[in-house]
Amino acid sequence: GIGADNDLYINQAIVFIEDAIQYRSINHRMDSKSLWLYRWYYSRTCQWILSLTITVILALAFIEKPSSLTVTSDVRYRLPAWNPPCGLTESIELLCFLVFVVDVSVKSYLVGWEEFWKNKWLMAYILTLIVSLTDWIVSLSFFCTETVRIRRILRPFFLLQNSSMMKKTLKSINSTLPEMASVVLLLAVHLSLFTMFAMLLFARTKDGQQDKEWVAYFRNLPDSLTSLLVLLTTANNPDVMIPAYSKNRAYSIFFILFTVLGNLFLMNLLTAIIYNQFRGYLLKSVQSSLFRRRLGIRAAFEVLSSLKEAPANAQQSCVSVGALQQVLQKVEMDSRCKQAIVRSLKTCSCDQLSAAQFQKLFEELDKDAIKQHPPSPEYQSQFMQKMQFAFGHPYFGYLGNVVALANIVSICVVLVMDADKQPSERDDFFLGAINCFFILYYLLEMVLKILAMGLKRYLSYPSNRFDGLLTVILLILEIATFAVYGFPHPGWRPEFMGLLSLWDMVRLVNMLIVFRFLRIIPNMKFMALVVTTLLDLVKNLRAFAGILVVVFYAFAITGIMLFQGAVVPMGNISVINTTYNNGTQQCGTYEQLEYWPNNFDDFAENFDFMALFGHFEVEIIYCLIYLLSVNLICRWAKIYFVAWWLISSVIWVNLFVALLLENFIHKWDRRCHRESLSDIEYQRTVELMFRDVLEEPTEEELMEKLLQHPHLQLCR
Amino acid sequence: GIGADNDLYINQAIVFIEDAIQYRSINHRMDSKSLWLYRWYYSRTCQWILSLTITVILALAFIEKPSSLTVTSDVRYRLPAWNPPCGLTESIELLCFLVFVVDVSVKSYLVGWEEFWKNKWLMAYILTLIVSLTDWIVSLSFFCTETVRIRRILRPFFLLQNSSMMKKTLKSINSTLPEMASVVLLLAVHLSLFTMFAMLLFARTKDGQQDKEWVAYFRNLPDSLTSLLVLLTTANNPDVMIPAYSKNRAYSIFFILFTVLGNLFLMNLLTAIIYNQFRGYLLKSVQSSLFRRRLGIRAAFEVLSSLKEAPANAQQSCVSVGALQQVLQKVEMDSRCKQAIVRSLKTCSCDQLSAAQFQKLFEELDKDAIKQHPPSPEYQSQFMQKMQFAFGHPYFGYLGNVVALANIVSICVVLVMDADKQPSERDDFFLGAINCFFILYYLLEMVLKILAMGLKRYLSYPSNRFDGLLTVILLILEIATFAVYGFPHPGWRPEFMGLLSLWDMVRLVNMLIVFRFLRIIPNMKFMALVVTTLLDLVKNLRAFAGILVVVFYAFAITGIMLFQGAVVPMGNISVINTTYNNGTQQCGTYEQLEYWPNNFDDFAENFDFMALFGHFEVEIIYCLIYLLSVNLICRWAKIYFVAWWLISSVIWVNLFVALLLENFIHKWDRRCHRESLSDIEYQRTVELMFRDVLEEPTEEELMEKLLQHPHLQLCR
Repeated sequence: GIGADNDLYINQAIVFIEDAIQYRSINHRMDSKSLWLYRWYYSRTCQWILSLTITVILALAFIEKPSSLTVTSDVRYRLPAWNPPCGLTESIELLCFLVFVVDVSVKSYLVGWEEFWKNKWLMAYILTLIVSLTDWIVSLSFFCTETVRIRRILRPFFLLQNSSMMKKTLKSINSTLPEMASVVLLLAVHLSLFTMFAMLLFARTKDGQQDKEWVAYFRNLPDSLTSLLVLLTTANNPDVMIPAYSKNRAYSIFFILFTVLGNLFLMNLLTAIIYNQFRGYLLKSVQSSLFRRRLGIRAAFEVLSSLKEAPANAQQSCVSVGALQQVLQKVEMDSRCKQAIVRSLKTCSCDQLSAAQFQKLFEELDKDAIKQHPPSPEYQSQFMQKMQFAFGHPYFGYLGNVVALANIVSICVVLVMDADKQPSERDDFFLGAINCFFILYYLLEMVLKILAMGLKRYLSYPSNRFDGLLTVILLILEIATFAVYGFPHPGWRPEFMGLLSLWDMVRLVNMLIVFRFLRIIPNMKFMALVVTTLLDLVKNLRAFAGILVVVFYAFAITGIMLFQGAVVPMGNISVINTTYNNGTQQCGTYEQLEYWPNNFDDFAENFDFMALFGHFEVEIIYCLIYLLSVNLICRWAKIYFVAWWLISSVIWVNLFVALLLENFIHKWDRRCHRESLSDIEYQRTVELMFRDVLEEPTEEELMEKLLQHPHLQLCR
Repeated sequence: GIGADNDLYINQAIVFIEDAIQYRSINHRMDSKSLWLYRWYYSRTCQWILSLTITVILALAFIEKPSSLTVTSDVRYRLPAWNPPCGLTESIELLCFLVFVVDVSVKSYLVGWEEFWKNKWLMAYILTLIVSLTDWIVSLSFFCTETVRIRRILRPFFLLQNSSMMKKTLKSINSTLPEMASVVLLLAVHLSLFTMFAMLLFARTKDGQQDKEWVAYFRNLPDSLTSLLVLLTTANNPDVMIPAYSKNRAYSIFFILFTVLGNLFLMNLLTAIIYNQFRGYLLKSVQSSLFRRRLGIRAAFEVLSSLKEAPANAQQSCVSVGALQQVLQKVEMDSRCKQAIVRSLKTCSCDQLSAAQFQKLFEELDKDAIKQHPPSPEYQSQFMQKMQFAFGHPYFGYLGNVVALANIVSICVVLVMDADKQPSERDDFFLGAINCFFILYYLLEMVLKILAMGLKRYLSYPSNRFDGLLTVILLILEIATFAVYGFPHPGWRPEFMGLLSLWDMVRLVNMLIVFRFLRIIPNMKFMALVVTTLLDLVKNLRAFAGILVVVFYAFAITGIMLFQGAVVPMGNISVINTTYNNGTQQCGTYEQLEYWPNNFDDFAENFDFMALFGHFEVEIIYCLIYLLSVNLICRWAKIYFVAWWLISSVIWVNLFVALLLENFIHKWDRRCHRESLSDIEYQRTVELMFRDVLEEPTEEELMEKLLQHPHLQLCR
């Protein structure tokens, strides 16, 4: 009937508007049941359950065998890690897989049969699930004794497929690959030509006296290649040329040529290429988000305009205000936006809305909330008014900064004075006393500011929240110190009591004071610009960070599978647990380099090690390559680390630089434009950053896209 | 009289046009004698003498005490360097100073008195000369025994002031300094806050067992600062965190935070800032060159139009063709351009030229020469024509590439096979035989190509010249080998004869063959693009390279003055020749690190060491800082190296990256536009790269500038 039809249209409009708000694609089934399923699937609870499942399955690696969460990862001191019984992690895994199965079925159903076949991501999702489940069954049938678990490497895929931003970013990276491959090829040619040159130049001489360079670095082809590859990462920089340079200084020309060509030209060329590709990346992605939003709104307009209650105005379709109000009541959106739209709908005197008016109403969604701080309290007494003026003034804030600086300087002085003293000679009185004084000042500052500004206004500034929180923590710590150890007096060196020793308490207080000093950032203009740029960057980098996590995860798991147990302690000396050609000397021991914690036995270690060494692991690569360069496992390690270096250091860091350049230059340009507006605090989003440059999609583009919708037949 | 006036005008026009060709400023004296002096000063001989003088005075550092040009710079093996007698280098220096005095006087006179006072470079030039001459007199009066010679540090200034490009670049760098200073300040704040944190975190513990981190890296404030500064250069990357990480893996968070913030964010921020500043740099400089050219031409037009022979046409000034021809005869310019201008002057039927026509005539200067290869010879015989077709075809070139690749592969195989053999076991027959075969093929290829293309056409391609030259050298080497050692046969291991052993000969031949393989570059499209970009870059970088040389020179001289003789050999162990606090162990010996050649005794060593380590010297900084971190000379060394790192690594490398990005992105964009024209070989210049974007200066701008000329009174 007409009523049921109208209900369907209203529901469609609601879903379209919600799609527009969330920048989702509108290409999904549009019948009543599917709409209900769609809203249920995208409800907060469902999405939260999905995210939780992904987190859980990724986190499993931290407790699974052979991982550990021991305090140290040093094989010599480490206690045996907790080993979950067979079936525990596996049953959690099965639960996660079931959730994913539901997820993929709902998604596939909603997209529709025809679209499903075009969607490679969905297909890959199903394939991954099948492989994982098979692997799970194999695992259980071996009672968890098998070592190779393919499903662990596949896990990051679940993270990848759930984020549209990450999929988009991956596509961009993919399109840059051919050019990157050219440069990597160029690097390979460069490397191999120079390797041949080096082998000819530093050949074994007949007298055997002068070939130190040959012995150390250019003994055979793999050695030479490794030496020069590591030189490309600058990790063995002066060492590799010292023997030759010591013989004749002209040899340095070879190394200069190699490093200048390879490191200065080719490596930076990679930066240039990636930057060139990603120059328009942010803008393009924001532009396509805008298109999705406009399309959703337009689709809502179209379905509403086909409501039967509307007068059959053939020339121009329009929407009745009543229907829109009905829709708005049921749409889930930010309450501020909803109120603003309802308000402007009321002020609009007309009864029917055209497409343009309809779009204009929803432009409220694009606007940024201008944050308004609550007003200060108004005091009656003259004294209080003067107080308010004095302590609400910026100069009072500056005074606070100066005091914080004085505190830092005093801590620094005490540290320098105490540097050479034995712990037993150290007198904690002075530091205790001055910290006590400064913390009292901070407390006073906080109270006075709250008095002057009122609690609400005080808390509305992020810098004040930061300040206040740290002051309260410091106060609690100080009171706890006094409660346990009494008041400071000369020669104040009490015994250890409670959770922390006095010295640890003082250290903790000092660290918090150093941290609190960061409050000066918003007061320095350039610093503030840099910090806001960095924060923006972090927002825009989420997709990249996700991809990085995926890569890290895969590498960490592969590393564990390849090199698990390769480092074992033997008395006080640990050797790499493989057969050698030339014995222990040749391959080196971990003991020699004191890199004990660097083994590949557990996931946590592997993971944070990689995170740290992202592009800084050149050194470790060098050491490990050197260590592991003799036999088969060493060869594998070499390839593994070179791949890791290329991906993490070369490509990812360059991506990061490209994005930073893009963001920073845009921001810098804007700073000049908006100098006058800088007082108003905007809640900045990427969309706003590009607002001046964005192009509105035309009516034709929107309608063309709408007519291609697989599940929606528009009346005209 | 009128004749003399006319002569003056003609001469002025000549000078103006020459200024336009060389992009020189036209603000100089314009009377007859000054014009003669001006042309003499800018004649090739004079400019050549000036350049030679600058080269000589800079090169003096290589033979002056305490420099040396010994083969090795290792203090243990080095022979005593040649010490020039007192007065030799000093008299060469005096000659150079005299040339500079003449130079500065002529320049000052030509600029004119009023301009002189505004020109800070000229003032600085005079000041430098006065200081240098005073220092020279002091030096001679001490009979060359004094050690501090200020004039040596001042020498690079002579290089700097002679190049207008370098002065302009310096100005640009100067304008970026405030923002760079902000980031460096931010880095300093980052470093100091984290240092305090580290000192509190890794404090000395009471049990003394667990404070390995404290002992090694965070013993006191200077130590901690150094550790973290070196971590910023990533030189001590995993080492610095291993002791703490071994204790508790949570400590790695501190290091991750530090490196991510410092190295990934702040360092790249510097890149972004410098790139942002230099984005328009090339365009701006090309634009101002264009303005100078147009201004010179316009000035020539103005003086020619005031010639008395011209009809007094009040409405519009114009120039007679005769006068212009008279001027053109005497102007020194590229003969191709001159011919083209004279030709178009003849085809122009009119008798008088307007300003626009006059400018248009000289646009020939901006055009790039289209390089035309001479035609191939035309053979009568059918056989020869077929030959010509076959060997002139690109496929024949590709075949040559394949053969060169095969040669490389064969050398590689022999190298791998011989890697583990003793030199006495090695059989040189195989390599000798295949090289002989390949060189014969190369000779054949060259002869056939010359036959097909004719000698002139063959030599007009740079790739053929490269090829041919190497082939001839290879042939000579091979003939020499056979002449000395006879033809190769199995077991061909003759005794050492002549200049080089057979093995050295073979190695040399192999190196040349590897080098010859570079001929494939123009055949690979992406490689060709990269190589042309790099070549362009090298052209544009000349000014930067000059400034880098200036900085290197100053640093090298300062390094010699500060640390001369700091490393002395003591038997087999060399120690740093200063008094120690804690003895030798603490400061470390050179022997331990085997960095013998790294001392600061001579200029050549210092200079090429720095050139190599530009931004790669992080390692050496680390080692030297570590070595020299105890007493006064060590403190100095620390400051010296930090300054060096900041300037060479941080700032210069970022400048380089900025220019590379600029050049490459521009080229990349252009590649898409000009795809069709790519067959024609242009002699590319920076001016041409930007031609589409350049703005022509307007008539008003030109006339305004002309009316401001200090030495020229225009008639109207």
